[in-house]
Amino acid sequence: MRKHIFNAGPCVLADSVREDTARAVIELGNCGQSIMEVSHRSKDFEPILAETIADFKELLNIPEDYSILFLGGGASLQFCMVPYNFLRTKAAYLNTGTWATKAIKEAQLWGEEKVVVVGSSKDKNFSYIPKGYEIPTDADYFHITTNNTIKGTEIREDYDSPVPLIADMSSDIMSRPVDVKKYAMIYGGAQKNLGPAGATFVIIKNSMLEKVSDRPIPTMLKYSTHVDEGTMFNTPPVLPIYVIGQTLKWVKSLGGVKEMEKRAIEKANMIYNYIDDSDMFVGTVAKEDRSLMNLCFVMKDKYKDLEPEFLKCATAHNICGIKGHRSVGGFRASCYNALDIESVKFLVDLMKDFEVKNK
Amino acid sequence: MRKHIFNAGPCVLADSVREDTARAVIELGNCGQSIMEVSHRSKDFEPILAETIADFKELLNIPEDYSILFLGGGASLQFCMVPYNFLRTKAAYLNTGTWATKAIKEAQLWGEEKVVVVGSSKDKNFSYIPKGYEIPTDADYFHITTNNTIKGTEIREDYDSPVPLIADMSSDIMSRPVDVKKYAMIYGGAQKNLGPAGATFVIIKNSMLEKVSDRPIPTMLKYSTHVDEGTMFNTPPVLPIYVIGQTLKWVKSLGGVKEMEKRAIEKANMIYNYIDDSDMFVGTVAKEDRSLMNLCFVMKDKYKDLEPEFLKCATAHNICGIKGHRSVGGFRASCYNALDIESVKFLVDLMKDFEVKNK
Repeated sequence: MRKHIFNAGPCVLADSVREDTARAVIELGNCGQSIMEVSHRSKDFEPILAETIADFKELLNIPEDYSILFLGGGASLQFCMVPYNFLRTKAAYLNTGTWATKAIKEAQLWGEEKVVVVGSSKDKNFSYIPKGYEIPTDADYFHITTNNTIKGTEIREDYDSPVPLIADMSSDIMSRPVDVKKYAMIYGGAQKNLGPAGATFVIIKNSMLEKVSDRPIPTMLKYSTHVDEGTMFNTPPVLPIYVIGQTLKWVKSLGGVKEMEKRAIEKANMIYNYIDDSDMFVGTVAKEDRSLMNLCFVMKDKYKDLEPEFLKCATAHNICGIKGHRSVGGFRASCYNALDIESVKFLVDLMKDFEVKNK
Repeated sequence: MRKHIFNAGPCVLADSVREDTARAVIELGNCGQSIMEVSHRSKDFEPILAETIADFKELLNIPEDYSILFLGGGASLQFCMVPYNFLRTKAAYLNTGTWATKAIKEAQLWGEEKVVVVGSSKDKNFSYIPKGYEIPTDADYFHITTNNTIKGTEIREDYDSPVPLIADMSSDIMSRPVDVKKYAMIYGGAQKNLGPAGATFVIIKNSMLEKVSDRPIPTMLKYSTHVDEGTMFNTPPVLPIYVIGQTLKWVKSLGGVKEMEKRAIEKANMIYNYIDDSDMFVGTVAKEDRSLMNLCFVMKDKYKDLEPEFLKCATAHNICGIKGHRSVGGFRASCYNALDIESVKFLVDLMKDFEVKNK
């Protein structure tokens, strides 16, 4: 029986995407080969890659002077590639959580003194997005993490930055329209709103390649390597890219990122409205900074002991993935694009029912 | 209609592997989620990873003091990770082809003078494996490429090396028993004998981690990062790992790597014996260094003009992937583990028939 999948990532994918992928794993179209078997440099795959890139550009309205890459290694590899390529004298970082902290650590490898953390919400376990900080105008770039998967906060506006803005959008890409031209680069792991684990997307403004540091950079870590070769410098993750392509088609068929945003708001409101009324559950982050993707909440002190019981109850009701990260505790309901609103309704009804029975 | 898949990589996979994967893409076992949706840190996936590693160790008889990693980025990322971690004063490389050349280039990033190319077959377009060279006993490691996918040569013995031996076995891993204890590290892309594109395997002797250079190394590029976290430092390529696991089970069910070697010899002999008798076709590499995985051959000068016609003929007969790499020309029949001997027989019969008709 299919579960209600609230996983933080990898996470729920659309039914049609799973079905299309299963078919392609047996045979891609009528090409006599599986999507896992076709050469990446063949007429069987190259049009798929081209279409995936075109759909990506169309859905996010990406200007012509940006390139799209699909690499391996996850967002974690980008944490080092960004400073390797772009950190010359100074880089600004906003510290909004676990992943931002990791990105900062990698940049510091090129000199701790070169990394300016312009704002941090570490003082309150990253439960809010810092505001009112200043970005040094002589920084090589300013790095943000738009959605904090573990802590449950999100930056939902496209910042104006005096220096090139680089964003890790691993867990909220494709969940809302983005004003891409405000960013020099956007990157992230695919395993949330785009596809399965195993591919990392990079949206990079081509002119950034002119700003690359003159330090020796390994070929695979240079953005120019991948831009120059149309993301085919070496064998790309073919199957994950195929799934991304199918997911983008599914997003398009539903009306694009505007519709994704509408649904995300609807789903998130259902949960947030309920916990705000609840005597038992309470959100863990500042209301104005709440993530639409990863909704974190705990039980109030007086009911704290009941947390394991609710988790057991949810599991018994075919819900998976709602255990909160150990650094926050309680619960996290990740409501990515492919999560049906019926699953959210089911969870909220269960919470209500649990509250009534245990209050 | 299913093709005869002679692709150089990604390449043919076993029928049962494709079928198992298609099922898991819809639902993994009875877990209510797709293999693309399960959390990598869950009881749904962790046993799969553990079993895949155990089967890998069993099949190659890997000693206890080695770790197995599944990373992203391809063998190309290993080209820089190897010197990043292990090159201190001097590294020895054997240059046997396109990929070895790339590996050498990455090592040279840390100082051209530190890289000693102990032997090269570049003088004859890498059509043989250099012999009789000396490995400097003060080198940090000696790097070889056991199978040269593009050029069609293979090192089928396990060398004795006075310094730690590191081998790129991207395209011949699992095709023969390997005396792993002679190697400090073996790595490669999975997309030949192991699974789909998107995962890179690393077999590393744990004691190598003590020999890591003290230069600052980005976290994702440090082998110790991945060894310490049991190849789960960040989200691994879940689906590719699943397919690798299924492929290893398939290899086991057929009798392991000894049986794979027997089949590889049988298939390769079928083609090599024919071209050695042929007046039309001729192999491109030294007989003693011929690869069992990638069989390269061309038409003799007198028939050279017929090459495009044979290619057309093969395509018309449902054969794919036999066009030779542009740097060699002619044809390359890649005969990986999952290629059925019937496909090889079919190709040879077609070659014979073509020769008779066109001589």
